[in-house]
Amino acid sequence: MLRKVHNDEQDMLSKNKIKQIQALARKKGRRESGCFVAEGNKLVEDSWGAFECEMLLATSAWLERHPDWRGRSETVAVTPDEMQRASQLTTPQEVLAVFRMPDYRLDLSVLRSSLTLALDTVQDPGNLGTIVRIADWFGIRHILCSPESADLYNPKVVQATMGAIARVQVHYVDLPETLAALDGLPVYGTFLDGTNIYDEPLSDNGIVVMGNEGNGISAQLEPYIGRRLFVPSYPVGEPTSESLNVAVATAVVCAEFRRRTAIHL
Amino acid sequence: MLRKVHNDEQDMLSKNKIKQIQALARKKGRRESGCFVAEGNKLVEDSWGAFECEMLLATSAWLERHPDWRGRSETVAVTPDEMQRASQLTTPQEVLAVFRMPDYRLDLSVLRSSLTLALDTVQDPGNLGTIVRIADWFGIRHILCSPESADLYNPKVVQATMGAIARVQVHYVDLPETLAALDGLPVYGTFLDGTNIYDEPLSDNGIVVMGNEGNGISAQLEPYIGRRLFVPSYPVGEPTSESLNVAVATAVVCAEFRRRTAIHL
Repeated sequence: MLRKVHNDEQDMLSKNKIKQIQALARKKGRRESGCFVAEGNKLVEDSWGAFECEMLLATSAWLERHPDWRGRSETVAVTPDEMQRASQLTTPQEVLAVFRMPDYRLDLSVLRSSLTLALDTVQDPGNLGTIVRIADWFGIRHILCSPESADLYNPKVVQATMGAIARVQVHYVDLPETLAALDGLPVYGTFLDGTNIYDEPLSDNGIVVMGNEGNGISAQLEPYIGRRLFVPSYPVGEPTSESLNVAVATAVVCAEFRRRTAIHL
Repeated sequence: MLRKVHNDEQDMLSKNKIKQIQALARKKGRRESGCFVAEGNKLVEDSWGAFECEMLLATSAWLERHPDWRGRSETVAVTPDEMQRASQLTTPQEVLAVFRMPDYRLDLSVLRSSLTLALDTVQDPGNLGTIVRIADWFGIRHILCSPESADLYNPKVVQATMGAIARVQVHYVDLPETLAALDGLPVYGTFLDGTNIYDEPLSDNGIVVMGNEGNGISAQLEPYIGRRLFVPSYPVGEPTSESLNVAVATAVVCAEFRRRTAIHL
């Protein structure tokens, strides 16, 4: 838990507080404090109903526009120079918030009646953040991640979600074990030798597994995947890129699941 | 033109050559020399039939596996340390090539019979590179870019194409002028207030305009766009992210155009 700060907008941001915030750039620092950083107006506004705010650094211009935040115990008014030192961004924003990581409980019965993504070691922070944003757009409320996947609270991931982190729950779980517990639920995966997704029946509920950037879906997870899909290139059979980026493939697959569901509504 | 180097694998990579290569990280350096850098095995292999190679730096391990490149005038065998200094990557690869920028001629009649992307000031290098890769996957051979778009030969863009840069022609043009010259061809664009793409007829040929990351399609270009599309979120009307990332939206739109065409084949 980060020490709460006194309500005094004239307070300089202490070196110690800057160090506490900088420590959240690293997984160790986040694990020790249970907190993460979100920067920028949209991300902070989207997040503050979803997560408990421990500290909010803001320029006076931002506080003018958000009078409800002035004088709250979490709030520290900062100069652009102080923001620069606390920020992980090349171009710091007007506001930076330290939020407490939520403690989501995974309810398997919810997964049985909805469409869920499972990420088998997606390692690039930008890809994970973009996938969370895609999930949000397509009404996917839960993402399962293997423990080796990128960390959701890595600042690059948080920023890439563009606020979707407040609306999508990401759970780090043992994927084979979880898929085994969901026995009977359709489990889809994308494979370069899968069936053309446009020729396959797609259900409204189920798990869609997306694989690692370089290696795809692991051999360990393959036995749990009953429906092997493929996003066809065009024209079929002509030389093209080896694959789509994993976030891009996720988007095309999610869009097609939702298009099918919408047809029946 | 970069000075060609002598064929001598024992040659140390001179400071001067390293400087020449480093200069290609900046647009000014690329404009002056007419060259760009591609790094890594897949990117170099994909590119070398498509672009004239001016210089190739490779480790001895890479040259062992590519005997056809040993002893060619463009080839310089380098140590990992030399590669580190020449490379723009955090983790340098075994091979780095300096290629001459191609001089593509834009043929409007080709555009009339195919599907083409137009990017209205897509500024993030990662987005542009990913869009080139998406275009390649979906058989789109030409991309039109407004002059303010990210530079295709920026190393971040080149690397993000994952080799697709060798198969897709990117043209920097005055977009309003070019669309005016293509009068009669269907021009699509994505707008947050557009029509659900799944309810709209889509043609096999035409131009699909994608807008800037923050501002979308510019007011100047809007009059040329006869068909306003929208990728629906799910479920319709529920709170969600404000938009999809531009590369992600490009992928969903291109996938849908190609799905429709494939239905008629």
